[in-house]
Amino acid sequence: MSSSTHGIAFSKGHGTQNDFVVLPDPDASLDLTAARVAALCDRRRGLGADGVLRVVRWAKLAGSGVSTGTGTGTGTGTGTGTSGVPDPEPGAEWFMDYRNADGSAAEMCGNGVRVFARYLCDRGWGGQGPLGTRAGVRTVAITGSGADTVVSVGMGPARIGAESATVVDGVTFGGVAIDVGNPHLACVAATDPDGLDLTRAPSHDPALFPHGVNVEFVTPVVAGPGGDTVRMRVHERGVGETRSCGTGTVAAVVAALRAAGREVGDVAVATPGGTLRVTVEPGATTLHGPAELVAHGELDRAWWDALR
Amino acid sequence: MSSSTHGIAFSKGHGTQNDFVVLPDPDASLDLTAARVAALCDRRRGLGADGVLRVVRWAKLAGSGVSTGTGTGTGTGTGTGTSGVPDPEPGAEWFMDYRNADGSAAEMCGNGVRVFARYLCDRGWGGQGPLGTRAGVRTVAITGSGADTVVSVGMGPARIGAESATVVDGVTFGGVAIDVGNPHLACVAATDPDGLDLTRAPSHDPALFPHGVNVEFVTPVVAGPGGDTVRMRVHERGVGETRSCGTGTVAAVVAALRAAGREVGDVAVATPGGTLRVTVEPGATTLHGPAELVAHGELDRAWWDALR
Repeated sequence: MSSSTHGIAFSKGHGTQNDFVVLPDPDASLDLTAARVAALCDRRRGLGADGVLRVVRWAKLAGSGVSTGTGTGTGTGTGTGTSGVPDPEPGAEWFMDYRNADGSAAEMCGNGVRVFARYLCDRGWGGQGPLGTRAGVRTVAITGSGADTVVSVGMGPARIGAESATVVDGVTFGGVAIDVGNPHLACVAATDPDGLDLTRAPSHDPALFPHGVNVEFVTPVVAGPGGDTVRMRVHERGVGETRSCGTGTVAAVVAALRAAGREVGDVAVATPGGTLRVTVEPGATTLHGPAELVAHGELDRAWWDALR
Repeated sequence: MSSSTHGIAFSKGHGTQNDFVVLPDPDASLDLTAARVAALCDRRRGLGADGVLRVVRWAKLAGSGVSTGTGTGTGTGTGTGTSGVPDPEPGAEWFMDYRNADGSAAEMCGNGVRVFARYLCDRGWGGQGPLGTRAGVRTVAITGSGADTVVSVGMGPARIGAESATVVDGVTFGGVAIDVGNPHLACVAATDPDGLDLTRAPSHDPALFPHGVNVEFVTPVVAGPGGDTVRMRVHERGVGETRSCGTGTVAAVVAALRAAGREVGDVAVATPGGTLRVTVEPGATTLHGPAELVAHGELDRAWWDALR
């Protein structure tokens, strides 16, 4: 088709059903506006995804936007999405320019970075080792191959905060605030998480979480033949229930270990979207899980150009 | 990427935000199982769509499945989706093998056939004139180009049936049964359709609609400077509210004209997904509207092969 010869290259993939459009843009030449991201992520009029992962050489972004050191995602921005990009760090060639489905820039996404690394690996562009994100450098390891590929990513420390609570359908769940670069309220309860109605946002203490919070419901740790396991469901702020959430999985495991009187451990987490594993060590957490690429192609150039 | 060189070709497009994965398969060689359709249409782990449009030469399907004459979609099937395929008719080279998101075969889709025709046209494979569907031959005309392309498709006669009613949130709406190849209950009411809660299925009379029904809420015809217009929302059986529905749009216009004491007319229909136009003539209806192709590419072969 003539229009595809000059289209915008993309891949579509997911990590435990948290799904992304990958846009390879090594030279940072793509004019990736918020409107284009939103149209692309729209599940009817676009391709559909939870977010966009722009694959860009970190050095190419330097000087193109507002550099805010280690990056908090709160930079003043240029409107083309280079806001909050930290200065490049040695050894990290690639930067994950992550955008939410509404077009806004975001710091980090534990499932997104695995899909991002898998893309680099399949493409022969690396994927192992350090990667740049708005939350700083993340280190990735890939093991296995094909359908058995497991991508592990260092998620940094998880900081335990105050105890709090949430109410779902009139039932109160006690939980604990956990910061994994973004705020979580992780509630450990023996209640079957499948029975919860998460179609509406669980309540939260606005004094403790002034910018909202992601809420996890996680079962206590059970020791099995294959190791420790929990089950989890998550409600993401501004999104609703999702089938999986990388940072939420980390928060859930930290909370479940804490409820068992433990500070470290290695726990498999069954989410509605699939199974992840989290390793908690002193001052560090690692998320392990699958990352699948489903399709590769080109966005119609006329469609893209009609968006601004 | 190596995997893309042997992938399964696809395009993604939509008609007033009713979206489809197009699979070009001229020689009917694709093993398109229900599991593959369902995975492909899954909006997280697949590409995501309301349905799949397999583009296949009608003659290639002959003898490959169960031929049931004019096709009702209730054929006994072979498991590979050629159930209910009518015998090829002269002049119609292409057949739209339409599958619902759950993998089942379906007769017709007014928005799907427009995307199908647009695909053929862009590809240089025709697109104008007669096309085969499980509901028989449909005739297509394409006018304009680029973003202004309008695809018109003959939708056959709309048969007016008995009066009936539905209840939404305790409020009763009177309507009329209309058969457009599939069953509709079209309710004309001055109520603002935007105010209706369609998160649950509107009720229906199971004696009149033993296999369920699509329910439309349509405003009375208003004459404007650009012609007659109505607004519509639709709840599709087995799906929920959709942003648009081709046959539902036809049913809505027939009902709105009937409520105005008219049997023919040409009416623009504003749906949540965009604007369509319906021409009603004695014994025939035509649906006019946009059809956009968003992306073209290849499904990952390993991903496809892992499904059966």
